[in-house]
Amino acid sequence: MRFGVDYYPEQWPKSRWDQDIRLMREAGVNTVRLGEFAWSIFEPEEGRFEFGLFDEVIEKLAGAGIAVILGTPTATPPALLVAKDPTVLLVRQDGRRVSFGGRREYCFSHQGYRGHSLRVVRALADHYGHDPRIIGWQIDNELGHEGSDQCFCEICRHEFANWLKRKYGTLDALNEALGAVFWNQTYSAWDQIPLPWPTIGQHNPLLRLEHRRFAASQVTSFLKMQVEVLRQRTSGQFVTHNFIQPGPAIDQPAMARELDIVGFDNYPVWGESSEAPEAWQPALALDFARGFANRPFWIIEQLIGAQGWDVLGYLPRPGQARLWAAQALGHGAEALIFFRWRSAVFGTEEFCHGVLNHDASPGRRYEEFKAIGKLVKEFEQLAVPGSAGTPEAGRVAFGWWPDNLWAWQIQPQSRSFSFQREFDRFYQAFFALGAEIDLLPDDRLWQGRKLVVLPVPMLMRQEQREALRAFVERGGVVVAGFRVGVKDESNRVVESALPGGLEDVFGVKVDDYEALDARQTVNLHLANGDVGAGSVWCDYLLPITAEVLAVYAGGARPGLGAVTINRFGKGLAYYVGTALDEKTFSFIAKEAMLRAGLEPFVLPPGVEVRRLALASRSGLPVYMVMNHKPDEVAVNVPGYGEVVGEPYGVQFVGA
Amino acid sequence: MRFGVDYYPEQWPKSRWDQDIRLMREAGVNTVRLGEFAWSIFEPEEGRFEFGLFDEVIEKLAGAGIAVILGTPTATPPALLVAKDPTVLLVRQDGRRVSFGGRREYCFSHQGYRGHSLRVVRALADHYGHDPRIIGWQIDNELGHEGSDQCFCEICRHEFANWLKRKYGTLDALNEALGAVFWNQTYSAWDQIPLPWPTIGQHNPLLRLEHRRFAASQVTSFLKMQVEVLRQRTSGQFVTHNFIQPGPAIDQPAMARELDIVGFDNYPVWGESSEAPEAWQPALALDFARGFANRPFWIIEQLIGAQGWDVLGYLPRPGQARLWAAQALGHGAEALIFFRWRSAVFGTEEFCHGVLNHDASPGRRYEEFKAIGKLVKEFEQLAVPGSAGTPEAGRVAFGWWPDNLWAWQIQPQSRSFSFQREFDRFYQAFFALGAEIDLLPDDRLWQGRKLVVLPVPMLMRQEQREALRAFVERGGVVVAGFRVGVKDESNRVVESALPGGLEDVFGVKVDDYEALDARQTVNLHLANGDVGAGSVWCDYLLPITAEVLAVYAGGARPGLGAVTINRFGKGLAYYVGTALDEKTFSFIAKEAMLRAGLEPFVLPPGVEVRRLALASRSGLPVYMVMNHKPDEVAVNVPGYGEVVGEPYGVQFVGA
Amino acid sequence: MRFGVDYYPEQWPKSRWDQDIRLMREAGVNTVRLGEFAWSIFEPEEGRFEFGLFDEVIEKLAGAGIAVILGTPTATPPALLVAKDPTVLLVRQDGRRVSFGGRREYCFSHQGYRGHSLRVVRALADHYGHDPRIIGWQIDNELGHEGSDQCFCEICRHEFANWLKRKYGTLDALNEALGAVFWNQTYSAWDQIPLPWPTIGQHNPLLRLEHRRFAASQVTSFLKMQVEVLRQRTSGQFVTHNFIQPGPAIDQPAMARELDIVGFDNYPVWGESSEAPEAWQPALALDFARGFANRPFWIIEQLIGAQGWDVLGYLPRPGQARLWAAQALGHGAEALIFFRWRSAVFGTEEFCHGVLNHDASPGRRYEEFKAIGKLVKEFEQLAVPGSAGTPEAGRVAFGWWPDNLWAWQIQPQSRSFSFQREFDRFYQAFFALGAEIDLLPDDRLWQGRKLVVLPVPMLMRQEQREALRAFVERGGVVVAGFRVGVKDESNRVVESALPGGLEDVFGVKVDDYEALDARQTVNLHLANGDVGAGSVWCDYLLPITAEVLAVYAGGARPGLGAVTINRFGKGLAYYVGTALDEKTFSFIAKEAMLRAGLEPFVLPPGVEVRRLALASRSGLPVYMVMNHKPDEVAVNVPGYGEVVGEPYGVQFVGA
Repeated sequence: MRFGVDYYPEQWPKSRWDQDIRLMREAGVNTVRLGEFAWSIFEPEEGRFEFGLFDEVIEKLAGAGIAVILGTPTATPPALLVAKDPTVLLVRQDGRRVSFGGRREYCFSHQGYRGHSLRVVRALADHYGHDPRIIGWQIDNELGHEGSDQCFCEICRHEFANWLKRKYGTLDALNEALGAVFWNQTYSAWDQIPLPWPTIGQHNPLLRLEHRRFAASQVTSFLKMQVEVLRQRTSGQFVTHNFIQPGPAIDQPAMARELDIVGFDNYPVWGESSEAPEAWQPALALDFARGFANRPFWIIEQLIGAQGWDVLGYLPRPGQARLWAAQALGHGAEALIFFRWRSAVFGTEEFCHGVLNHDASPGRRYEEFKAIGKLVKEFEQLAVPGSAGTPEAGRVAFGWWPDNLWAWQIQPQSRSFSFQREFDRFYQAFFALGAEIDLLPDDRLWQGRKLVVLPVPMLMRQEQREALRAFVERGGVVVAGFRVGVKDESNRVVESALPGGLEDVFGVKVDDYEALDARQTVNLHLANGDVGAGSVWCDYLLPITAEVLAVYAGGARPGLGAVTINRFGKGLAYYVGTALDEKTFSFIAKEAMLRAGLEPFVLPPGVEVRRLALASRSGLPVYMVMNHKPDEVAVNVPGYGEVVGEPYGVQFVGA
Repeated sequence: MRFGVDYYPEQWPKSRWDQDIRLMREAGVNTVRLGEFAWSIFEPEEGRFEFGLFDEVIEKLAGAGIAVILGTPTATPPALLVAKDPTVLLVRQDGRRVSFGGRREYCFSHQGYRGHSLRVVRALADHYGHDPRIIGWQIDNELGHEGSDQCFCEICRHEFANWLKRKYGTLDALNEALGAVFWNQTYSAWDQIPLPWPTIGQHNPLLRLEHRRFAASQVTSFLKMQVEVLRQRTSGQFVTHNFIQPGPAIDQPAMARELDIVGFDNYPVWGESSEAPEAWQPALALDFARGFANRPFWIIEQLIGAQGWDVLGYLPRPGQARLWAAQALGHGAEALIFFRWRSAVFGTEEFCHGVLNHDASPGRRYEEFKAIGKLVKEFEQLAVPGSAGTPEAGRVAFGWWPDNLWAWQIQPQSRSFSFQREFDRFYQAFFALGAEIDLLPDDRLWQGRKLVVLPVPMLMRQEQREALRAFVERGGVVVAGFRVGVKDESNRVVESALPGGLEDVFGVKVDDYEALDARQTVNLHLANGDVGAGSVWCDYLLPITAEVLAVYAGGARPGLGAVTINRFGKGLAYYVGTALDEKTFSFIAKEAMLRAGLEPFVLPPGVEVRRLALASRSGLPVYMVMNHKPDEVAVNVPGYGEVVGEPYGVQFVGA
Repeated sequence: MRFGVDYYPEQWPKSRWDQDIRLMREAGVNTVRLGEFAWSIFEPEEGRFEFGLFDEVIEKLAGAGIAVILGTPTATPPALLVAKDPTVLLVRQDGRRVSFGGRREYCFSHQGYRGHSLRVVRALADHYGHDPRIIGWQIDNELGHEGSDQCFCEICRHEFANWLKRKYGTLDALNEALGAVFWNQTYSAWDQIPLPWPTIGQHNPLLRLEHRRFAASQVTSFLKMQVEVLRQRTSGQFVTHNFIQPGPAIDQPAMARELDIVGFDNYPVWGESSEAPEAWQPALALDFARGFANRPFWIIEQLIGAQGWDVLGYLPRPGQARLWAAQALGHGAEALIFFRWRSAVFGTEEFCHGVLNHDASPGRRYEEFKAIGKLVKEFEQLAVPGSAGTPEAGRVAFGWWPDNLWAWQIQPQSRSFSFQREFDRFYQAFFALGAEIDLLPDDRLWQGRKLVVLPVPMLMRQEQREALRAFVERGGVVVAGFRVGVKDESNRVVESALPGGLEDVFGVKVDDYEALDARQTVNLHLANGDVGAGSVWCDYLLPITAEVLAVYAGGARPGLGAVTINRFGKGLAYYVGTALDEKTFSFIAKEAMLRAGLEPFVLPPGVEVRRLALASRSGLPVYMVMNHKPDEVAVNVPGYGEVVGEPYGVQFVGA
């Protein structure tokens, strides 16, 4: 397995390099990432390239048996390039052009910037593309992060119109899709189409969605442009990119298709975190990245210490960084590269703490890093990295697709709605029942599954409705959140009863719906006699053929259904009409797992158990038990009985 | 009576029209509003007009006996027009020019835009101006709403200077009024005068007030320009405009004077509403519109379902839309047009729910709409629409004038001050005592009244001070809120003791004053032995001839008066020096009503009783009793004893 | 002593002047400030000067024995000047150029504006520079206040680059200091360097710090430019400037060095104040100004009534303005000039209440002003104004330097960190123990002191570390807050163990550190057996030679030290690793005072006792006892026993 660090030799005197590499080796490092912000080192003047510094350090690393991933440095354009043509800089939605001085300040639509990027990537590929010490390439860095995903400049306005023209062919088709007749927005020329800048009132929902689709496509094409250069000019080297947690308007599945390996930057806490996350939070992020990857999945930046720019987030407790490393392995990471080797003493990220202290001393974090190196070795003995112990049919598939997320971001409909939180709510319910979960884009969602969960699938294309119908008909179990199928691909409200085109599958009609604010809840009477609570949103369900599992005891339409189950074909379809409290969700999720033939396994809060790929000597599976809490906890592991987890501890049961 | 809907035939296939019109007829519709956002349907290319689509639908409507109000489409300029000259777009205070893509994005001062507006209105008037199927015209749509009231562009800067020149004649006069000597702001040329854009520190209070007056005058002149076209080119058709609740910097009374009918858009809840309003809240809005109208007053957009753009507000409970319709009738509306016929499936307002569902089915809201149609018929049997059952002298007159509102918005003086909330406080106190209330601009305030209420009349012109003095002298009762007469017409602090020029009328001197923040209150000892509380502001009153009704028991000047009453001439003047709690205000308001010879009639919370214009068979008045609460409630109706109100119910007592 | 008012004769009719001056005399006024916003009165047209109005009023004042301080009017440029060249206007960080209409809207780097300023100051100096009725000059007004300290225009960008060039000499030196290699920010030309405008991500910490240093230096040079004119063209007149409380990015000590007298505007409450301040709050501000002054220190604007622009702050209770005047005297003010004579009836500051009412009547505030005049006379009998009763060695020296403040503002590191609040925490602890405190820039910090306090000294230059070391070695006691010495002069993290270069002095190593959010606290076990609490930040201290006074009982590293004391050389060094609660801080501060040989003197909350410079007849010191509370309070005064303080009372004990 690859175990390593992100290394910035250019930030330290050469005299220090040998000592750094010695400490790396002692900790078991076999891989480093280099160079992803070093454009001006590689190209000190436009067109003049120098590789000496990196050649030298790569040679030293090779001498120590350490392989290199090289970053293309396009995330940080040289100052000269920006000074010569400030139109490369991104324009924010408010019309302000950003300044040089951060990173990723560039516009993805800018042909000049694309040209500069091609030049430097070609030069790097020509120099390092056949060098066996370089095992692979990382494109740019965290594309779309920190508000760099959407530019609102005039070039983008022009490119957006071209993109719409390619997509719709005629203005009539575009106007028809937009419903441009509303508020007299019919366009008679392509160059009349605005970006969704501030206006009086609010822009058309489809215009806003298409702008996100366009922006995401620009990011993908920028990535693809670089990948193609590398494909042409290198050999035997993989191409990756380091993605971050869900958020920016990028199309991760489309980007992943261009890559050999999907990289992920795994920061369970960052500057804005005051507390440690719940166990399921980093788990979700890892499952997300593994899910859209559909290919080997590496951690390219893994947290080792407290992080932050102008403010610092939560300080990981002793052992906690090791715990999170184990969790990444348990969720399928086939490599663990830590950010970063030594803590920077200058620049924006001087409080992103690395393995070594600012003063270069190997302190508490270095010791923990060494312990993680040992854990990686141990893990390799017990598991096939990247392979899950549980077969696909035994896992729960969660479906998501970018334009549903974007449609919700554009029209949250309830002031207390957050796509992430509603998604979390579903994930957390199944996680607490020990389910192994795959978060999958819709094109790989249904095959070979017993149980598919669709949190708040508002925007559905016709083929998605059909796939859902076919899956249930054939015997699958579906659990779907509220606002099911309200919107079509054009972000228009469907012209059929809700759930749009799926009345028969769910056996209900949504007779009314209501947004709740952050302080409002509605009581529910559950089929098991308990009382639950709904929040955020109420779909008031009129059962047609469905059975009601939870009834509203308040709200605008008491007596109507809040959660229903319907037999359709050979399968079952659950409709969850409101944001359920944890206990109620647990009842529903358990029901659904049992009906799908999956075994729920109730975990104590904060405990996570992953079944590893290899069997133990006794023939039972090997389990990795992780305790995310600061106190000891006892957990019953199937076949092994009670196991006591140390605070922040990682144990291999059956090893 | 006019009963109908806002209809957008251009948004649906023609094949649907007959079915729509059939359903309208079945519900009793006799009127629709059409066309107010359809500029590009009427004028697909500059100067080329087409009326076919609307001709066709008007013919069908006429065939069904449904009359038409036609909107001038100037709220939504065509994309081409904006693309040709982006300077038609409004500039926000922060200097950002807004984008095409919403509505009312135009600058009222733009001569080019005025020219385009004239062209389309003339063409419409020439085509429809003598068509008997068209009963009237609506100008534009909700002028000034959503931040469209004030533009800060260079054209406006120029026009503002011209406006000041016309008003003041000389720079010396302007400088003198401004007190421009303060902070060296003396202007030596008209084009030096800024708009109140962001500066270091804060702009001159009169400059800010004049800018609001100017902005409001631009809106009025834009309205007037269109009215004049219609007066010249139409016959037998009324002209109206659909106003919204108080808020924008527009001069509603001045605008109303140009119209035949005042329209009002009555939305008791909207996207930002989490809860149903209190009974008095829509009542105040209706009384506001009827008050400044001084002519027939129609509801042009009445709510039928949940509303909102990107988020949805409160979902009206079954029966609640009918209740609010009844309330509008009870407060004098002579027509009820509902927004909108079918819920849109595209565009910004797809969650502004209309009478029909998105899928065109007539569901719960259509049934309620039909019930409202019946209620309208019933009401017509019992009342003369638009006429109140209680004569003017028996009603309480509340005074307001725009520049007092604007002066307060410019200098709220207390961080917890909101003009609307202080106005509400007075209104609510009298509403809870069953008072019928007229909210009147100051030019129609005094005539024929016994009791006049002036919430927080800070800015008073000299003639207003004199009118108040004369009214009390002649025997009237006045209740005035705090900061009485502090400012003159030039938004300067008066150079006489407070209350400015009215010491003798109120019989007090304001010896000190204090702003309270949102968490601060001051105890009061009341003349009736109770303890009350003041908030927001304290005027510390030194009685000269007045009697003290409430004394401060805390604050900066304990022992001074908080509420006083003074006999002046034949009348009485109450000074309310602080924001009173509900109970204390009830005590003062009851006192004042009794002293003015009005009969208070204490209503249970949430209940509203309106006396209708016609007598019952028994000779007693007919009352409409409305229960705004979700529970049954009993109310004593004079002459009829206890009446039980159903949840959200409307009853005609004596009918 | 100077006792007077700020007077604006230009704002009132001449016919009023005699009456004003008569009332001033009756109150004991001997000094007024005039003219600081009167540019256009002095220079009605560019290059044409008129002095008639002020000549006339100065003559009248002289006749009444009242001396004049004249303001240079550069805080408010004439409208014409701005209209001719709008580039004189400041640009905010968001890129918006501010508008004429407030004050100090100008850019300090603008050569044109500097030229205009020179012209008017020269003309004033030539006219009044040898006039004995003018005793001194005030430069501009509250330089840097209200966001006027930092301009982000293109001229400033250019000047910033020049300033960096002068400081660093070469781009290599600048790039090295910045650590520009991080995120590829190496500059290859001076004009590539941005101002810290909004970017994607965040700018380099040193770039941001240098921008503050640059901005502050521009303010200083603007001040100096005017001082030089006055030095050349006047005689026998002092030069001052009226500073405000800490806040803007200006370098007060550097500015003070240019002046003869440091002026201070003393507003214990302003528009944003809902409550009266604690006793120590205005005390800190006064000690701050006296500390950086290092020369006579005058109050040029002292509060007499409620203040505010669009909202009003706390209304001083009867007697409270007199109390705050006494406090200013007790903290060394040698003159008291009140803002302002009559309350303005127009302009932005019409709610900044002056001595006279808006209507010119002498009311409650005038009576209090007269009482203050009497107090000033009484004080002069008992004290040498400006001299403290306690010698330097008996006082506690607090150290501060601007770039440490700025570095913290740039990187607060904890979301709950505020430099002001942490500084306050230290000040309040010693104030409550009766300590007399000097807040000193670091160049005058150590000499002749026993006890030096350094709240949160993060950024330390090498000579500051050495001075601290030497001071302790020689026998001094130091109390230092958290993050001691983390940054060097280049705002880089030091490359040595923390506390940077001072491990031996404090006898600890900072083994870890953690930011807490506003709701988080960590329990502490104190050496005295008590339990305390830390917040905001935790430095986890590993004692080497130090003794631990407080141990963390929670947080990331329980068991490590939170507060330590170390003997080093002949002295002692306390390290306070977290934000202590009041009780714990009292324990530590008392310890430190006792060990330094200072006598703590525990005061009841709200009471302040200042030892005056002269002895009483009995030989004991004279004390001024001030009660900042609305209730009577008893306090034990050394040598005099229990003294009862009236509400808001001022007493001279021993007089």
